Amino acid sequence: MLAAMEARTQKSELTRAAIVGAALDVALEQGLEALSLQSVADRVGLSKSGVFSRVGSREALQVATIEEFSRRFIAEVFAPAMQQPKGLPRMDEIMRRWIRHTRDVEVHRGCLYCAGAFELDDREGPLRDALYADVLRWRAALRRTVLQCMEQGHLRAGTSPEQVVAEVNALILGLLYDARFLRDSHAADRAETAWQRIRQSYLA
Amino acid sequence: MLAAMEARTQKSELTRAAIVGAALDVALEQGLEALSLQSVADRVGLSKSGVFSRVGSREALQVATIEEFSRRFIAEVFAPAMQQPKGLPRMDEIMRRWIRHTRDVEVHRGCLYCAGAFELDDREGPLRDALYADVLRWRAALRRTVLQCMEQGHLRAGTSPEQVVAEVNALILGLLYDARFLRDSHAADRAETAWQRIRQSYLA
Repeated sequence: MLAAMEARTQKSELTRAAIVGAALDVALEQGLEALSLQSVADRVGLSKSGVFSRVGSREALQVATIEEFSRRFIAEVFAPAMQQPKGLPRMDEIMRRWIRHTRDVEVHRGCLYCAGAFELDDREGPLRDALYADVLRWRAALRRTVLQCMEQGHLRAGTSPEQVVAEVNALILGLLYDARFLRDSHAADRAETAWQRIRQSYLA
Repeated sequence: MLAAMEARTQKSELTRAAIVGAALDVALEQGLEALSLQSVADRVGLSKSGVFSRVGSREALQVATIEEFSRRFIAEVFAPAMQQPKGLPRMDEIMRRWIRHTRDVEVHRGCLYCAGAFELDDREGPLRDALYADVLRWRAALRRTVLQCMEQGHLRAGTSPEQVVAEVNALILGLLYDARFLRDSHAADRAETAWQRIRQSYLA
C-alpha cells in the first residue's frame, strides 16, 4: 500500500512538472500575462480543473513558472560553474555558460528574466515581486562571484562589483537583442569579445 | 478660399499628429500589439471611422507609430549631436543624450526600439520589418559616427565599429532594464561609467 501511495505521489509530481513545463513554454513564447489555466490545460491534455487542482490559481501558476525558469537557469548557468576554483575561473565559466544559454534561443526559447522584466516593468503585484526577487538573488550571486575575484587578487581592488554586474547583465541583454531581434549570427562572438574587454579592464 | 483650404489641411495634419501621438503612448505603455483603432479613437475623442479615415488600417497605424517614435528619437538624440565636431565629441554627445533619453522614463515612457524588439522578435510581417528597418538605420548612423572617430584619429585604427555599436546598444538595454525593472536610481551613472570604460579601451 505504501508503494502504491508512493507511485501516486510520484505520478502527481510528474503531472505537476509537466504543467509547469508547459506553462514555461507559453510564458517564453507569449509572455507571462498570456498564461492561463486553460491554455496550459490544452497543452498537457488535462481539464482546466485538473490543472487548478495541481497548481492552484492562475497567479500561483505564473509564480511557479518563474520559479521553474530560475531552477533551470541556475542549474544550467550557475551550479556547474561552482565546480571551478573561486575567482576568475568561476566567473569565466558563468559567462561562458550564460552567453551560450542566451545564444541558444532554439533550445531555451529565450530568457524570462529579460522578457518578463520588460513585460512587468510598469506593473505592481506578486508576479513582478516574484520575478524581481529571483533577479535580485541572481545578481547577488554574481556580485559574490565578482567579490571573490577581488579576494583572490584576480580583479583590481577597488573594482565596483555592482558596476561589473550591471555591465555583464547589459552584455547579455545586448546579445539577446542581436540574436533574437536582429538575428545576427555574430551576436554571441561579440558578447564574448565584450566580456573579454570588460574582464581585461578590471584585471589586477 | 485658398486660406480656408490651407486651414483645413493644417487642422487635418494636427488631428493626424494627435492620433499618432496617442498611438505612441499606447504602444509604449502596453505594446504595439495592444494598439487598435478603437483604443486610439477613445484617447483622442474621435470615432473609430474618424481615425481610420486619417491613418488607414490598424497595421498602418502601427507602422506610423514606429515612424513617429523614430522621428522623435532622431530629433532628440542624433540630430542635435550633429552640431558637434565629427569624431569623439559627436559620439560623446550622442551617448550623453541617449543615456538621458533612456533614463527619463517618466518623460519618454520607454523605448520602442527596445520594447518593440522584445515584443516582435519571434514574429514576421510588415510591423517587424518596419521596426527592423528603423533600428538598422539607427545602427548604421552609429556605425558611421564610430568610423569618423577612427578617421579623426580619436579611436584606434582596427577598432570594429560593429563591436562598439553592439556594446553601446547593450549598455543602453542594461540601463533600461535597471532603471525600469529594478528601479535602480544609480542606473544612469553606471551606464555613463560603462561608456567611459568602453571609450577608454578603444582610444587611439
